[in-house]
Amino acid sequence: MSYPTTPISLDDIESLSVGAWILGTGGGGSPYLGLLNMRALYAEGRTVSLMDPFDLADDADVAVVSNMGAPLVGQERLTDSRTVARAVEIMARYQGRPFHAVMSLEIGGGNAIQPLMAAAHLGIPVVDADCMGRAFPEAQMTSFAIGDLQPWPLSMADCRGQEAIVARVTSWKWMERLSRKACVELGSVASTCKAPRTGAEVKRWGIHHTTTKAIRLGQAVREAQRRHADPIAAILEAEGGLRIFAGKVSDVARRTTEGFLRGTATIEGLDGERGSRMEIAFQNEWAVAWRDGVPAVTTPDLICVLNAVTGEAIGTETLRYGQRVAVIALPAPPVLMTPKGLDHVGPRAFGYDIEFRSVFAPVSE
Amino acid sequence: MSYPTTPISLDDIESLSVGAWILGTGGGGSPYLGLLNMRALYAEGRTVSLMDPFDLADDADVAVVSNMGAPLVGQERLTDSRTVARAVEIMARYQGRPFHAVMSLEIGGGNAIQPLMAAAHLGIPVVDADCMGRAFPEAQMTSFAIGDLQPWPLSMADCRGQEAIVARVTSWKWMERLSRKACVELGSVASTCKAPRTGAEVKRWGIHHTTTKAIRLGQAVREAQRRHADPIAAILEAEGGLRIFAGKVSDVARRTTEGFLRGTATIEGLDGERGSRMEIAFQNEWAVAWRDGVPAVTTPDLICVLNAVTGEAIGTETLRYGQRVAVIALPAPPVLMTPKGLDHVGPRAFGYDIEFRSVFAPVSE
Repeated sequence: MSYPTTPISLDDIESLSVGAWILGTGGGGSPYLGLLNMRALYAEGRTVSLMDPFDLADDADVAVVSNMGAPLVGQERLTDSRTVARAVEIMARYQGRPFHAVMSLEIGGGNAIQPLMAAAHLGIPVVDADCMGRAFPEAQMTSFAIGDLQPWPLSMADCRGQEAIVARVTSWKWMERLSRKACVELGSVASTCKAPRTGAEVKRWGIHHTTTKAIRLGQAVREAQRRHADPIAAILEAEGGLRIFAGKVSDVARRTTEGFLRGTATIEGLDGERGSRMEIAFQNEWAVAWRDGVPAVTTPDLICVLNAVTGEAIGTETLRYGQRVAVIALPAPPVLMTPKGLDHVGPRAFGYDIEFRSVFAPVSE
Repeated sequence: MSYPTTPISLDDIESLSVGAWILGTGGGGSPYLGLLNMRALYAEGRTVSLMDPFDLADDADVAVVSNMGAPLVGQERLTDSRTVARAVEIMARYQGRPFHAVMSLEIGGGNAIQPLMAAAHLGIPVVDADCMGRAFPEAQMTSFAIGDLQPWPLSMADCRGQEAIVARVTSWKWMERLSRKACVELGSVASTCKAPRTGAEVKRWGIHHTTTKAIRLGQAVREAQRRHADPIAAILEAEGGLRIFAGKVSDVARRTTEGFLRGTATIEGLDGERGSRMEIAFQNEWAVAWRDGVPAVTTPDLICVLNAVTGEAIGTETLRYGQRVAVIALPAPPVLMTPKGLDHVGPRAFGYDIEFRSVFAPVSE
């Protein structure tokens, strides 16, 4: 199969890394190391192209890739594009046929760049789609899981040369449990190729055009920075977002545990928010934000903590005391807000006994 | 390929379960549940046959099976012969061809019966060999690992339907680490098919004729029981063993942790040993025995704790206060006592800073 594709320029990837970091809602790992990989690959003459998910044949084989683990560990053990490609190759060998295209598990954070790194080595296009529309910490938190698609197999590779396959599981939660333990043993970071998807599955259950959305978002921020305009206003306008809070980081409690980065950040209000306080709990990604003890925004609405001046995202692993930040919310993909979607990614899926109310479409009581 | 084989009778399997439990040196799990499985399979009309390892063609494909995990858990989650067969089938599918024969990872304990259960479903012979000549707790503690054979791949199946493959590792220790984590997550017990071996590898590095050895040992015990003779004397005579201690169990400290059963047993001397005390440390299997604080026997010499009257083995998971026991030592396979062998299975491999001195061939200082 050969598909109509559009080349992705290095400038697109620079924008992608800015936009994806915002959509990462604190997680997904910094796209910066992926960007460095792509600069090096483009300098070697390799290029990557993007294709529309709706151009996929129903029986096309699509690899779904992600770097799995705790973002903080990714700061020390750097991403290597060959390891990502190896995870795809292990899966291709396991299923007995090559892939036609590769896509991102999550468009948020560094995982937006993972399929590009694989594609540069494998010579196949990147599908303009993902299955979260943001970033989430666990395997069952995807539109494919919400659609009850087959959770297995999964392949995993680390930088040392270990390789594992979760060959069959009885639920997405079991996929999460088994793959997470293996990932933790490999050092809490591993390159993974998730359950392969057909073109038909990607068209029915994928979250579409999120790569181009992240590129557009990054372009809006970079353009505002160039014009010395307010980048946060540019983000809100581009994505229909809402300002939630503004303040100074006064505390961060953070621990890397069982393959996740968990904790809570506290932000003291500034300007119009002076006297108020926001607390945000995270499991890799920002999950629930409370203003003065009252839930203000919860997953799956996208909670983004941004540098108040540059508009660039701050991750749960890089937030620190004294930073001036803006907290904004962006709308979540509709599939995440269905009753089945909320079972997978609503506040209760993260252990918070809070009813989900989107800040964009409040539910009347 | 078709090999000369000898049918194994159900009476042979009854003897195998007695002999293997002694060779298990406290671990490998009780063979009793495997025996019940074999009684049921034979009642259905299935039978199993044994073949000599030296009849294997050099390029024969041999599956190496074992039930992995903490013996105590195996007391609650019962062995199902179909799960063992499934582990072999996963591996056959993964390597793209069926197996010619199946063999035991360890002849000690329930794992002596595992290949018989697989064979009864798969219709292939059992090779009269294993790669420990006893039981050991970890993946790198085999003659195949001592021979530096390829440690991967490994397949794993649980009773619920989860399946995993450790596809590639850079060392036997990494195989142990990755497979152990997966096993623990599955509930600390799983059926595994270890790295497939060729006939040439089994002939060069297998520990040969251990199935028939365990059957013979069990026959000796059962015969002594029938004749009201001393079964322990019969064991010592059959295997060239040594009496080490006799007494009453006064304490057992036991914990199931990270997929192992660990702890220490204390035995107060009786008869000729009155006033003395033996302590035996275990990790699934008995590892080191001290008499009055002085090392008396250590791995890889086989330390066996036997019921003083019946001569039957007592496992680390079933030893309890008040039992009258005899502690004996049996000789280890020579490959385990080479310098490379001791690196894998000597006292230091279990964390004890003790020089190995076999009770059968004391090293002069």
